[in-house]
Amino acid sequence: MARRPHVAIVGLGLVGGSLARALTAAGYTVTGIDWPLVVRRALRTRAISRGATRTEKGASADVVVLAAPPATNLRLLRRLAKVARPGLVITDVSSVKGDIVREAARLGLDGFVGGHPWRARRSRASPPPRPASSGGRRGGSCRPVRAATRVVRSIVCAAGARAFTTDAATHDRTMAFLSHVPQVVSWALLEAARGDAVARRHVLRAGPGFRGMTRLARSPRALWQDILEANRVEVRRALRALVRRLERSRSLRRDRRDV
Amino acid sequence: MARRPHVAIVGLGLVGGSLARALTAAGYTVTGIDWPLVVRRALRTRAISRGATRTEKGASADVVVLAAPPATNLRLLRRLAKVARPGLVITDVSSVKGDIVREAARLGLDGFVGGHPWRARRSRASPPPRPASSGGRRGGSCRPVRAATRVVRSIVCAAGARAFTTDAATHDRTMAFLSHVPQVVSWALLEAARGDAVARRHVLRAGPGFRGMTRLARSPRALWQDILEANRVEVRRALRALVRRLERSRSLRRDRRDV
Repeated sequence: MARRPHVAIVGLGLVGGSLARALTAAGYTVTGIDWPLVVRRALRTRAISRGATRTEKGASADVVVLAAPPATNLRLLRRLAKVARPGLVITDVSSVKGDIVREAARLGLDGFVGGHPWRARRSRASPPPRPASSGGRRGGSCRPVRAATRVVRSIVCAAGARAFTTDAATHDRTMAFLSHVPQVVSWALLEAARGDAVARRHVLRAGPGFRGMTRLARSPRALWQDILEANRVEVRRALRALVRRLERSRSLRRDRRDV
Repeated sequence: MARRPHVAIVGLGLVGGSLARALTAAGYTVTGIDWPLVVRRALRTRAISRGATRTEKGASADVVVLAAPPATNLRLLRRLAKVARPGLVITDVSSVKGDIVREAARLGLDGFVGGHPWRARRSRASPPPRPASSGGRRGGSCRPVRAATRVVRSIVCAAGARAFTTDAATHDRTMAFLSHVPQVVSWALLEAARGDAVARRHVLRAGPGFRGMTRLARSPRALWQDILEANRVEVRRALRALVRRLERSRSLRRDRRDV
């Protein structure tokens, strides 16, 4: 494989588009795959050097990045599996890793290394995604690093991000606590306030604390329902842990009053 | 009473100090009451025009603002009651209003109008407090506005804030939903993540969503325990509403999987 692999990115939205721009700027050959209108715009702004409209075209690149929403990435993976040569490196950006990692194993795609741009870097004006590659579908540590993992890490690095490798189970359990449950709580806080006969009249007067706690509630519902559904087992575990703590703080207060 | 009442502020912390500075800048005579060291510094920086170290000194002003933490404000109110002339206007900045409004009534302080700087104004670099005066200890609307309420509103206004009048019960119920429960949830989210054997290893890698949801968890515990204890009935109501919504989202997901 050449020093700089040819990268195909399927889906030129916020994540795919940023990655395309960063890799093209770093000298990579990037094929962008999306609807014709999106591809034309990406070519015009030089976010990509080549364009295509069919996912299968990605199979001729060295690496394919699936950058559509989670459920779509699963479908794209199945289409890609029909035309992929053995060892084709495939990664994705879905925020739940268990199901896509299992699906890749079932399809015999041994060059699949799941990815997830975990968080934006704060010190840059226009942050590139920072993928936490999440391969190792057998669980546990990924050492020794497979060739496919090395390729994916090199791309992450070239995009200005820091690679961090973990297994899918750890990733999904951690994300339930650090991302998925906070999302559910943000909705619940807003809905609880809006649902109260008295508090509902003052929601718009709420201070920065409440606004900060309900900022996530503005995220797109449909995308999140996908994510929560895909990670339901871990989300349920994390929600149970949270509710237990809330119940405890409630009963604590009751006890103290009775003293 | 003069056009600009003489204001005594007991407690020159973040809230009391900001109010003192704003009123002094607006041409008011402000007596600051705090420990000698704090008073000296406030005089030096011209945040106040006069200083004192005993709460009782405040009784010779036209208006007394109690700007200590909630439990301390209750004690200060009792001390002030022993020396206050009839009709002395007293207000405070405690974030729970029920108990102090009841205590003022019990002490026969008919010039008491509870206050609460609800939220900072976003359009100014150094925001003055924005009190939502919360008088009307008989509940319901405060119209017709009592003379004491008018005086407190004029001070709020002079400090560059917008006055908003409501009754103590509405205030406390609303705050439970918009401020107190979000605080409890912020702690619970952080503790749940830190308490999980897997997620705990990645808390420091969490993205901006989690950081935003746990920012409040850095607030001073002792002050908050006071507030939660003072508003325990309403906080319990709001927590119940929140947990109900969280339980619902949990069971919803379980149902959908079973289909």
